[in-house]
Amino acid sequence: MIKEKYDLIERYMLSCMKDSAHDREHVYRVLYNALEIAGSEENVDYDVLICACLLHDIGRREQFDDPKLCHARVGGDKAYRFLISHGFSGDFADKVRACIKTHRFRKNSYPESLEAKILFDADKVDVAGAIGIARTLVYRGIAEEALYSLNPDGTVSDGTNDADPSFFQEYKYKLENIYSGFITKRGSEIAENRRRHAVDFYEGMLEEVKESYEKGEARLNKHIEK
Amino acid sequence: MIKEKYDLIERYMLSCMKDSAHDREHVYRVLYNALEIAGSEENVDYDVLICACLLHDIGRREQFDDPKLCHARVGGDKAYRFLISHGFSGDFADKVRACIKTHRFRKNSYPESLEAKILFDADKVDVAGAIGIARTLVYRGIAEEALYSLNPDGTVSDGTNDADPSFFQEYKYKLENIYSGFITKRGSEIAENRRRHAVDFYEGMLEEVKESYEKGEARLNKHIEK
Repeated sequence: MIKEKYDLIERYMLSCMKDSAHDREHVYRVLYNALEIAGSEENVDYDVLICACLLHDIGRREQFDDPKLCHARVGGDKAYRFLISHGFSGDFADKVRACIKTHRFRKNSYPESLEAKILFDADKVDVAGAIGIARTLVYRGIAEEALYSLNPDGTVSDGTNDADPSFFQEYKYKLENIYSGFITKRGSEIAENRRRHAVDFYEGMLEEVKESYEKGEARLNKHIEK
Repeated sequence: MIKEKYDLIERYMLSCMKDSAHDREHVYRVLYNALEIAGSEENVDYDVLICACLLHDIGRREQFDDPKLCHARVGGDKAYRFLISHGFSGDFADKVRACIKTHRFRKNSYPESLEAKILFDADKVDVAGAIGIARTLVYRGIAEEALYSLNPDGTVSDGTNDADPSFFQEYKYKLENIYSGFITKRGSEIAENRRRHAVDFYEGMLEEVKESYEKGEARLNKHIEK
């Protein structure tokens, strides 16, 4: 890819996510993860891959403003229009749009091209390990959700089958289960190498919080006269 | 403490932090941590301690609205007024106010009473370990700050001496250094037991992010024609 075109696409990406340092950082990590994964594959179209990585989350703001919208669909269409209006070929814009539309796992939208598969995995790598934990907590913070829920008996739930949203619920529902969902061998390897960081953090935090609550309520009751 | 009074104080605390699940969870953990620490001390005034724990962060909203205010000072005065207006003695309200005013480490405001020392440590335990990491990320998320900064050469900074605020900067500046600041033996022990969780998370995340960036830029440059 010619540097001028890279700069043009990067500037457009930055203009779409100017409010969020987290989203910008995520885009570069996904791009770098994708190039690492691509190194273990043959016949990668690097122009399509680099462009799709840079633009894969440009529909985030639309989904934030209207949660019924899917940022992958919106972003794919935005990318297509941007590329066509800046002189890229229809074939190139089509390929980039297809990658972006399937980067989020949904039934009936499986990544088909090699570049789409690499983007899918590169994005999922950023949900694995410590960085996946950090991103989840950052988003939970914004949403003002709890870190954990309490069981009816006052003990801390580990998140399994929780009804209310919380960090532990998200860990059990999503973060813990992503490691089996990779398409490429290298994507799966990178995620596996990071897995221990996430498991250790979750288990450590659960232990700490349980420790506080489990003896705490009994101790408190000793000092409260009914 | 009579249950009716506990419930009254708890309701006031909840009314002061109704917007924040994180703040409410923190208050109960601090209360339970304080009761654990108190178990290793002699002659603790449990009524003062329990009341001070429940009310220690009720000045948060005022500090949020006006960052020049100190939530410990504001909270101490709010607690004093609340207690006096609900029939608690001036001596009791004074003792609770003193605990709350010194729970945040500042020069010229060292915790003096045993209960003030226990509250100070119980609050700091919640900055240690995995829970300290989680709370920091949740607040960083709200503030829309970055997770890390880049050095001038494009590599990821580990946070040491960073000029810009980020999670790694906060880890290096604050989280890494709290373990030597405890007053009570039991508070220090609890924090030490949790320390490994925080260190492992920081080191794991730094490794992951460095891995993405360090090879990523070189790989990208191979595919960009200048």
